[in-house]
Amino acid sequence: MPNSPAPTAPIPGFHLYDTTLRDGSQQEGLTLSVADKLAVARHLDELGVTFIEGGWPGAVPRDTEFFARAAGELELRHARLAAFGATRKAGVPVAEDPQVAALVDSGAPTITLVAKSDLRHVTGALRTTAEENLAMVRDTVAHLVARGHEVFVDAEHFFDGFLHDADYTTAVLVAAHEAGAGVLVLCDTNGGMLPHQVTEIIATLRGRLEAAGAGDARLGAHTHNDTGCAVANALAAVRAGITHVQGCVNGYGERTGNADLITLMANLQLKMSMDLLPAETLAEATRIAHALGEIVNMPVTPRAPYVGASAFAHKAGLHASAIRVDPDLYQHTDPQLVGNDMRMIISDMAGRASIELKGRELGFDLAGEPELLSRLAAAVKQREAVGYSYEAADASFELLLLDQLGRVPSYSTVESWRAISQLGRDGTLESEATVKLLADGDGPHERKVAIAEGNGPVNALDLALRAALRERHPEVDEFELRDFKVRILDAHHGTDATTRVLVRTSGRGLEFQTVGVGPNVIEASWEAIYDAYTYGLFKSGV
Amino acid sequence: MPNSPAPTAPIPGFHLYDTTLRDGSQQEGLTLSVADKLAVARHLDELGVTFIEGGWPGAVPRDTEFFARAAGELELRHARLAAFGATRKAGVPVAEDPQVAALVDSGAPTITLVAKSDLRHVTGALRTTAEENLAMVRDTVAHLVARGHEVFVDAEHFFDGFLHDADYTTAVLVAAHEAGAGVLVLCDTNGGMLPHQVTEIIATLRGRLEAAGAGDARLGAHTHNDTGCAVANALAAVRAGITHVQGCVNGYGERTGNADLITLMANLQLKMSMDLLPAETLAEATRIAHALGEIVNMPVTPRAPYVGASAFAHKAGLHASAIRVDPDLYQHTDPQLVGNDMRMIISDMAGRASIELKGRELGFDLAGEPELLSRLAAAVKQREAVGYSYEAADASFELLLLDQLGRVPSYSTVESWRAISQLGRDGTLESEATVKLLADGDGPHERKVAIAEGNGPVNALDLALRAALRERHPEVDEFELRDFKVRILDAHHGTDATTRVLVRTSGRGLEFQTVGVGPNVIEASWEAIYDAYTYGLFKSGV
Repeated sequence: MPNSPAPTAPIPGFHLYDTTLRDGSQQEGLTLSVADKLAVARHLDELGVTFIEGGWPGAVPRDTEFFARAAGELELRHARLAAFGATRKAGVPVAEDPQVAALVDSGAPTITLVAKSDLRHVTGALRTTAEENLAMVRDTVAHLVARGHEVFVDAEHFFDGFLHDADYTTAVLVAAHEAGAGVLVLCDTNGGMLPHQVTEIIATLRGRLEAAGAGDARLGAHTHNDTGCAVANALAAVRAGITHVQGCVNGYGERTGNADLITLMANLQLKMSMDLLPAETLAEATRIAHALGEIVNMPVTPRAPYVGASAFAHKAGLHASAIRVDPDLYQHTDPQLVGNDMRMIISDMAGRASIELKGRELGFDLAGEPELLSRLAAAVKQREAVGYSYEAADASFELLLLDQLGRVPSYSTVESWRAISQLGRDGTLESEATVKLLADGDGPHERKVAIAEGNGPVNALDLALRAALRERHPEVDEFELRDFKVRILDAHHGTDATTRVLVRTSGRGLEFQTVGVGPNVIEASWEAIYDAYTYGLFKSGV
Repeated sequence: MPNSPAPTAPIPGFHLYDTTLRDGSQQEGLTLSVADKLAVARHLDELGVTFIEGGWPGAVPRDTEFFARAAGELELRHARLAAFGATRKAGVPVAEDPQVAALVDSGAPTITLVAKSDLRHVTGALRTTAEENLAMVRDTVAHLVARGHEVFVDAEHFFDGFLHDADYTTAVLVAAHEAGAGVLVLCDTNGGMLPHQVTEIIATLRGRLEAAGAGDARLGAHTHNDTGCAVANALAAVRAGITHVQGCVNGYGERTGNADLITLMANLQLKMSMDLLPAETLAEATRIAHALGEIVNMPVTPRAPYVGASAFAHKAGLHASAIRVDPDLYQHTDPQLVGNDMRMIISDMAGRASIELKGRELGFDLAGEPELLSRLAAAVKQREAVGYSYEAADASFELLLLDQLGRVPSYSTVESWRAISQLGRDGTLESEATVKLLADGDGPHERKVAIAEGNGPVNALDLALRAALRERHPEVDEFELRDFKVRILDAHHGTDATTRVLVRTSGRGLEFQTVGVGPNVIEASWEAIYDAYTYGLFKSGV
């Protein structure tokens, strides 16, 4: 055996172990470039996690490159990098296994080894013997520990295995512990457990480990959401004494996903009073969750606990006045602790109280202006009656408010527009739009006539409107329409129905939604897009 | 007091209480027409829930209409309809409270009353006294019970209230029980509980209820997902002895949503061996979850437990062959039990087996036609890859099948079409469409050129198409387009995205959905409408 390098010292205290870059990227439709992975790792470090599992070097070329680049490019302040890998191959000496060598070569201080702990998988999937699997665990852990690595063992299919053959599953854990593993991670790989089972199984396991002289082993948990209980199962494990939880930001992962690490850490910190993170770190949670959503191109679901856009949103109406008096009666925690905000949803039940609150949220103090509030409430009611919805379209609501205040500038006066879609005799589809307007702004109005082709009538209208505005307001090109939602209201009139269109726009440091309503999708889209440019130009200081 | 009508008999056994139509519709962006609500209720009944909470008659005009129409149009086989309402106003005799009268007028056999059970809300939000609130609960429950209703009481903010002042919260429950409430529903209204708290609080409450002589009270739970534990909290409550759970299909609801009722029922039935539903009902869960997603225009998230498109999906690779040998090693339950399928990602989503099943549903026995099945699977796969979805569009799927069988007649050959929408200088909106086609059928083709105005481009196209077909096939006028849904796929391209349109048509004794996909909403709508006339004419024997 070569000289032993200095061993990696264990990190004291509770472990928040993030596996977004490994297990999270198993999610359908999620792929990460090396640059993406580095960016995600930086965010995770800011979030204050203890470990960042970067991938499987040697098995996945992109992950090998990630660890190579991380060594030079990634400066972690809180987190330690972990590489994921497997125990040695059956029948192959550990020193000759290239997969194991690649783990050492990755330079990661911590190596997390997946080990089969369900006998059925040992014989059915690995196609080896119970004894050889134990040897694979022992050999690989010892080999890596001897090279100075901190080694964790993910006991794959632990819970199912324990229910099937607790003796064998316990033997695998004991073997890993005796060989020097720092954490034995109990994995609910198929995700079928319920919290009370987790509680009972860990209690039984404890007794068995003690009986085997491994009572001092540190335990962890890795849970999936197949019963909708990923977070609760991890919490049950923590209450049963484990001190290491694995999860992914935004709950990314195969099938139904892994335990959502942010929900988990917020619960542990805010609800179970564990002192895991500096307070200012948790307050970055919402920003970081959304930043990761952008990087992986899977936006955070509005319903996500703690960090979702709807997580602290209230449909106003009845409770608005009570919320104004004491918001804590209506929220389970202070949203600012996780960097989120209470938000009033403006809906047709909105009275003056909720509009006042909404105004405050947007930076307008309307408390002293009862008449303006009444006018606004009436305007909202009247517009929602014909199909507008300000629930999601904050920008359109703000334009309405600014309009009542006489503070929206005019960037143009529309004269006319036309959108044509056609299927030609040769089978080609064409869409084309014309926009005629007077461009406002400094200096005299200027009549602009613009035409554009698009891949549909709305796209063509958008492009023609930009073209007509561009000369006077070149900033329009800095905005991008990012999302476009159509809802047919009162659908029982068939194609006769009223249409509502929501458009999400980003650019010049802003991201906002506008709404348009009309008897047809083209007119509704036009209104939402036109409002988007007005709002974007105004709010970005043009 | 008037004569007491016969009381509504309690439903024995465990209650699955769905509140999609009431609390679920509090979700941001979710609005349901009365027709939508009736359609949702029919699906919920098929799913086998015990109660369907339809809304708040008297407070929400749409809900009043729902109950009025439900009496004549809704035939429920399993479920009982419940109306939601509040206890009487403070200081107003119950018999003079119009809100309470509207509950009686709704005709719903079961009334679920929300009652404040947190003293801070009684004084801070209701602005009444502790004593008056108790009287409000007693009076309203007794009033409704005397009129033959089964009455449940939602104890709002129960858990927070219990932690604040257990005496008062218990007193509210005891008052409701003594007045005749059939179930006392413990609500985690703000959603901040964790499972172990639910367990402990219910145990403590039990003792207090027994001490107050209300030990025989039946308890329920209503949980929200603000800590990511809605399902786990409900399960903890069930293990603590409650026998009534409330939730929403797909976890719809305010903020982070309600407990997902399907996840909950699948856990109870499959993991906790409770005998809640006939097996064949649970096997409809996936279909029903997705059908509801279509109705409310909020598709089921692929990561949803049990019913999501990814819930039993595996990234192929290492485990592929092992999965083929023994799938049960890699899945926590048999996906067919909930009507879902194991799916290897990167393999065809619609396998031959499901197409065979679908064909059988439509009356075609394809079991003996492996080659046709393969062709159909390939066609479905290819079309779904570009955005088609046959989940809701049975008619389009049947047309595809008939097309493979060479059995769809041609009613016309389209030459070209054009749709124009414009805003004129005088502010008038106009939409106009031209359709040119060869009308097929008996006798020689005949070229038809038709023009129509509509209130939008799609409406104009629909009318022009009818006009062009009318002479040869006058039956087209017997069809009505009843619903029209637009979804933008791949939304990150803004107005550049692909559009999917679903059209529901009725007429000549049929009601069916067709789907169209295209780079723009006009093209996609054209396809769906054109298919609708083809299908409608063919199936009604023209």
